[in-house]
Amino acid sequence: MKAILNHRSIRKYKSTPIEESLLNEILNAGVRASTTGNMQVYSIIVTTDQEIKKQLLPCHFNQPMVTQAPVILTFCADFNRFNKWCLQRDAKPGYDNFLSFFTAAIDALLVAQNVCIAAEDNGLGICYLGTTTYTADKIIDVLKLPKGVVPVTALAIGYPDELPELTDRIPLAAVLHREIYQDYSAGDIDQIYAAKEALPLTKSLIEENKKETLAQIFTDIRYNRTDNVSFSKVLLKVLADQGFMNNEM
Amino acid sequence: MKAILNHRSIRKYKSTPIEESLLNEILNAGVRASTTGNMQVYSIIVTTDQEIKKQLLPCHFNQPMVTQAPVILTFCADFNRFNKWCLQRDAKPGYDNFLSFFTAAIDALLVAQNVCIAAEDNGLGICYLGTTTYTADKIIDVLKLPKGVVPVTALAIGYPDELPELTDRIPLAAVLHREIYQDYSAGDIDQIYAAKEALPLTKSLIEENKKETLAQIFTDIRYNRTDNVSFSKVLLKVLADQGFMNNEM
Repeated sequence: MKAILNHRSIRKYKSTPIEESLLNEILNAGVRASTTGNMQVYSIIVTTDQEIKKQLLPCHFNQPMVTQAPVILTFCADFNRFNKWCLQRDAKPGYDNFLSFFTAAIDALLVAQNVCIAAEDNGLGICYLGTTTYTADKIIDVLKLPKGVVPVTALAIGYPDELPELTDRIPLAAVLHREIYQDYSAGDIDQIYAAKEALPLTKSLIEENKKETLAQIFTDIRYNRTDNVSFSKVLLKVLADQGFMNNEM
Repeated sequence: MKAILNHRSIRKYKSTPIEESLLNEILNAGVRASTTGNMQVYSIIVTTDQEIKKQLLPCHFNQPMVTQAPVILTFCADFNRFNKWCLQRDAKPGYDNFLSFFTAAIDALLVAQNVCIAAEDNGLGICYLGTTTYTADKIIDVLKLPKGVVPVTALAIGYPDELPELTDRIPLAAVLHREIYQDYSAGDIDQIYAAKEALPLTKSLIEENKKETLAQIFTDIRYNRTDNVSFSKVLLKVLADQGFMNNEM
């Protein structure tokens, strides 16, 4: 619980490497996560080599932590290993479709979150690299991922060289729905975002970006439709290329 | 770490309800998970009402734990709340595409795994309901999920009434790749699955199901292509219907 409640994303790391035994312990905690049918349809690429991290750097929009953190973990939906096993055992795998990709992605993401908590519980810091899905095609090239394998998220991990404040969250009640979904009224929305909008950080962001509202910073700059559509095309093409879009009998 | 290492899926629950304060504490731990751009694009539906759980039962292939567990949590990718906020703040949301769905799904899954660990750390048991994506269309109807909301996983949660053995895992080295992906030779595959194939449980499953190999039980029965393709169609239609497949400018 303590590790979970104290989570903050770390973007500055000490150069201290992670001891092999500790990394092993953390990854072992990762694979205790639930997995569909105990198929374990995921893989973790452990990258510590500075040259390969440099190749990953532009895939993650040149965020300095990618080369600064001692370890980058790339979590992949992976049916390649399972398919090979099936074929060697006179079994015909039927995992070349969207549902199978999503099943494997869930597997990979639950492992990733276990790894985060285990890492933080052991004094390490982590930061998710959301860029992984935006540039999945390039990451596939760098990490030589074969058909059946798609990167779904990545983590920078290492000893923290900063201790940022806990990030604000909207009120818990705002993300909870009792029994069934209770849709939001205009008044609900105003109330949910009031505290976030009143933060000094929000005010300075609006000024810096010359926008009228915090929401415009998301829609016009950080997560704008042009980028989202372009990344959607990349990701859907990756799913097809990696063999997960044969959705007809 | 202890909670993570002791995880087992619980399929039999005591009728004891979960105290409201404990449930709250666990859900609060959930929302400490990393979230893309701190957008928190997820919702959690907390279902305790027996009538609604009965409606969810067939969505989860009539697994008895759905009505037996005191609480069912359904984790949803949710851009509905965020979109409403944008529209009320003169910002034009561009989150009607596949990338945005996947971003929100990642958010929801990281929260779900935090909730699991927090629950188990407090003496509760959990079981993921992988059926959530198979019948997302029906769950949307039962839980009245509006456009912009897609269920991605669900949890049964309550006080355990069983203590199953820890589930076997393939060797850690089998899911790890150093620096870049190292593809598997036929010999690797034999070695990776040897221990699992030698389990007494495997032998009895093969006999019961009148199959030649464990892999055939997966490909022909548990996770066969016909089902996978049919569930893929459902899920892709749900994404389109819920407004996440406008992938053109």
